[in-house]
Amino acid sequence: MEIDTQLIPIPPDPKILSKKNVVVIDVLRATTVIVYALSQGAMEIIPVASVEEAKERAKTFSQEVTLLGGERNSQKIEGFDLGNSPTEYSEERIKGKRIILTTTNGTRAFYLVSAGNQIFIGSFLNIGAVAMRCVSLDRDLLIFLSGNKGSFSLEDTVCAGMLIDLILKNGEKPVNLTDASYDALFLYQRFEENLIGAFHFSSHGKELFELGGGGDLIFCAQTNITEVVPLFKDGVIRIF
Amino acid sequence: MEIDTQLIPIPPDPKILSKKNVVVIDVLRATTVIVYALSQGAMEIIPVASVEEAKERAKTFSQEVTLLGGERNSQKIEGFDLGNSPTEYSEERIKGKRIILTTTNGTRAFYLVSAGNQIFIGSFLNIGAVAMRCVSLDRDLLIFLSGNKGSFSLEDTVCAGMLIDLILKNGEKPVNLTDASYDALFLYQRFEENLIGAFHFSSHGKELFELGGGGDLIFCAQTNITEVVPLFKDGVIRIF
Repeated sequence: MEIDTQLIPIPPDPKILSKKNVVVIDVLRATTVIVYALSQGAMEIIPVASVEEAKERAKTFSQEVTLLGGERNSQKIEGFDLGNSPTEYSEERIKGKRIILTTTNGTRAFYLVSAGNQIFIGSFLNIGAVAMRCVSLDRDLLIFLSGNKGSFSLEDTVCAGMLIDLILKNGEKPVNLTDASYDALFLYQRFEENLIGAFHFSSHGKELFELGGGGDLIFCAQTNITEVVPLFKDGVIRIF
Repeated sequence: MEIDTQLIPIPPDPKILSKKNVVVIDVLRATTVIVYALSQGAMEIIPVASVEEAKERAKTFSQEVTLLGGERNSQKIEGFDLGNSPTEYSEERIKGKRIILTTTNGTRAFYLVSAGNQIFIGSFLNIGAVAMRCVSLDRDLLIFLSGNKGSFSLEDTVCAGMLIDLILKNGEKPVNLTDASYDALFLYQRFEENLIGAFHFSSHGKELFELGGGGDLIFCAQTNITEVVPLFKDGVIRIF
């Protein structure tokens, strides 16, 4: 098994990708929101690229079970039911609901990797469960980091490194790491004892903190609070 | 001063680039070769993208002072005077000579960043001198890593991290680091006491070692053996 890590969110080669499983990570905050919402009983998440598309898609579903969620510039979108803070996605609010989600970095990522074999959604919240799934499937893996406005994201890379660390520790077969995966692994080891510390260096972490999102940072740095492993398939994210 | 690091060799936005200085790094081995050759008295280096272009350009110069150098698949090119091992570029061989150079990763990089304000060539060999130049110019900086066949390169990133570390330690004005620059800095700190160790994880390092290039790895990991700071300008690399 080879693990490669896409450090910058540019489109991977679809031919190579079709042979691999993919884990999409956007710690702040799209994949944290998705994992948490599904752990709280959301029916499904439909990631879309634009605010307009979100509104159009919502019209095609029963309004009773459909919510609009997401952010632009880290802020809730006007007319939407939910923002992009995972704390909003509690059981009382979203159980049994379909969420149409649009965020700056994370929702775009799913379409960039749609040629992948199986596409999992990872965050610190479910990283152990994702690792165990990758180990049991034993297929070459691309960890795709959503980044921050097209650039490298420190916290996504730390999370990728934790995933790699767990696969190495739990798998029995040899694993080959690319240079990018070693980079992620070493970065994780730097922050292993203090994941929150990574947010203090990260530009997105600092931005959220300044906007009063310090609570979200603490929430997003929780590890292994759920075992759900969401999959992106035919445009929908569910626990298939 | 802001320091950004381009971790994957994709073309930067020329508009943003024109306001910045750039340091191009390709530790294995293009920028190590260039820095060493100029430190040994080479007149100038002309980086070109293809073997054919190298041969065509050579015809336009006096053969007495012009040499062809470079590699494909880490091997010397047929009919060329020099390969891509820095140890070949000694004073006896190249003093006063113009070298037309073509390599897999490094020579392409110069043209990707040609919109930059001043474009410096860095390697472990001259990293301290490059850092001091960047500090004295006090302009926003992009560290551009040539990578390995389009992908992230561990050793280039370690070298970028050393450059950042030296700028932070020697400058007096505040420096802002992007997430990618923090990644490089942390990676450097991981290998600070054992730069050669980074080559043991790097795919390019392992490839060179298997091809018998272990001596080159030791050579390329030498730090601050020269003070030359080569510049790429109008298609030519010289100590201007």
